[in-house]
Amino acid sequence: MALGQDSTMKTASSFAELLTGEQKMIDSIKGWVGGSLIGDDCALISSQTLVSTDALVEGVHFRRDLMSLEEIGWKAAAVNLSDIAAMAGRPRYLFVTVCAPAGFSQNDFRSLYEGIGSCARQFRVSIAGGDITASDQLMLSLTVIGDVHENGCLTRSGAKPGDVIIATGDFGASRAGLWQLLAGEASKRNSKDGGGSHTLGKHIHPMPRLSEAWMLVGKTGSAGALMDASDGLADALVQLARANSVGMMVELGSIPIDAQTKKIAAQAGVDPVDWALYGGEDYELVGCIDANVWGEWRKEGSKNNPFVPIGIVTDGVSIDLTRYGSPAPPLDMSKCFQHL
Amino acid sequence: MALGQDSTMKTASSFAELLTGEQKMIDSIKGWVGGSLIGDDCALISSQTLVSTDALVEGVHFRRDLMSLEEIGWKAAAVNLSDIAAMAGRPRYLFVTVCAPAGFSQNDFRSLYEGIGSCARQFRVSIAGGDITASDQLMLSLTVIGDVHENGCLTRSGAKPGDVIIATGDFGASRAGLWQLLAGEASKRNSKDGGGSHTLGKHIHPMPRLSEAWMLVGKTGSAGALMDASDGLADALVQLARANSVGMMVELGSIPIDAQTKKIAAQAGVDPVDWALYGGEDYELVGCIDANVWGEWRKEGSKNNPFVPIGIVTDGVSIDLTRYGSPAPPLDMSKCFQHL
Repeated sequence: MALGQDSTMKTASSFAELLTGEQKMIDSIKGWVGGSLIGDDCALISSQTLVSTDALVEGVHFRRDLMSLEEIGWKAAAVNLSDIAAMAGRPRYLFVTVCAPAGFSQNDFRSLYEGIGSCARQFRVSIAGGDITASDQLMLSLTVIGDVHENGCLTRSGAKPGDVIIATGDFGASRAGLWQLLAGEASKRNSKDGGGSHTLGKHIHPMPRLSEAWMLVGKTGSAGALMDASDGLADALVQLARANSVGMMVELGSIPIDAQTKKIAAQAGVDPVDWALYGGEDYELVGCIDANVWGEWRKEGSKNNPFVPIGIVTDGVSIDLTRYGSPAPPLDMSKCFQHL
Repeated sequence: MALGQDSTMKTASSFAELLTGEQKMIDSIKGWVGGSLIGDDCALISSQTLVSTDALVEGVHFRRDLMSLEEIGWKAAAVNLSDIAAMAGRPRYLFVTVCAPAGFSQNDFRSLYEGIGSCARQFRVSIAGGDITASDQLMLSLTVIGDVHENGCLTRSGAKPGDVIIATGDFGASRAGLWQLLAGEASKRNSKDGGGSHTLGKHIHPMPRLSEAWMLVGKTGSAGALMDASDGLADALVQLARANSVGMMVELGSIPIDAQTKKIAAQAGVDPVDWALYGGEDYELVGCIDANVWGEWRKEGSKNNPFVPIGIVTDGVSIDLTRYGSPAPPLDMSKCFQHL
């Protein structure tokens, strides 16, 4: 997660219980360093420039027995670019720091950098610098610098009661892919993007939702709210609600979940909605958009609109869930995966 | 070191033997990712913006039994800002990523961030974001973003035969301070800046040479060459010579070495010139300036000119050393400290 996340501390007591240790730490850090700029997926350091940084640590964020170094490199870059997508920006420059243990060979470095370079090229980002050093544990730290989109900048703030909550793609698939890898199905895949498996592909080869974000900002300008669901849909909803001091009503039945995710969840004996809410690493966009703007845009059809509605913003102080219209149990943030 | 360093690969064969493993790796990375922007202490990503990133790993770059977390935080920030000084830029924003092992307490985080924040405040830099995550080993990764100075931007390129090689401050003191710490003299210091000890202060509490760089760029504009001697004076001379395909004549007797450094070197049984050339971590500036510009500036006296001359740029293909006028043995890069 970016240090910038979750920092607009609101007093709505209903959300206090939904704060993770990570989020509390960020609030502490703001106090220690006086970081008034800390506040979103990216830091907006001028009217034009976005910056975000992400660290990935072996054994915490990835395992080399489950993913190749090229895949790890791609994912590290994609995750970083996703933070720029979360502000609807255009990523431009990537800075790559690698701390590598003894025995990390020239070929290992090559694979890692080729994975990073492959993602950077696909999204037309230049690798402009970085650092390399020794360590006991493989660690990547990437910083991306981007431009604010000419149509506007979407932050976590900007939602209002009555807005429609919208999301791209589908949720829970990355968690299903991880389950497949942990269950030893890794050997079945025959290509770096998951070998045609949607779930493995989402886990191994995530795609930053840049073009989707640009379509949104083309419709909304800077009005509305946006973030990426890197830590799960539930976390994204909580962050958006906190940042705007609003409540939400979310229909679990409308959360897009791929058929393959449901199938694997059944194999695992898990409710696929839990994976969608808490699994994380889907890197889909979650936003809030004016209901009238949404109504018009929706008419254009799914080809011109990559988002689906999953709920509405309320003037309440809690996130209320329904499942096919009936009240559902509240969010349980203890189910979230935390890297700290 | 920054990935940006040392990347202007020249064919001057005399320098090939002076290449470190680190430098060769950087050239490989450029090939893998197509990083044409990789090229100096900072990446110049627009006509106005400088970016640099540095990683510090426990056991590689620092030891917690020798320095407090507040001192480690200060040094991490200062080292990062020094890369902006190396381009004569103005640092503006700092992004701080901390990977912390289990048992790293809230107070530990606080000390670390207070050290970073203290340095940032002193040099009027805003902490604008970052990341925190778990790891086995304490690891910091800092990214600084700065503005090009209104008078110009100094890179490693821009030196020409006949230029005067100039440097700030003094060399070898940081290595002497490290020797004191390793010899168990750490307990003697009573404050975070080395307790009045010049050498401990240089090691523990380095100062980025920002105002010195701004004085230089005020005299030269974008003409000339500049870098910081983070990996030692010898490394800085080699990088400047390679980046410009020039030779150098350096008088070892004119390298500024503090009396305390000499005293500690005598205790350690080491030639203080070796510490000055290869010890590293002095974070002084080393540059090349037009001889006429230098001649005029020098007349203003040391109060208005923080640099001293240590040699001249030649049209040769090697770095020739003299010691009080007599030929001295060539540089021996195997004496350099390398983090990779």
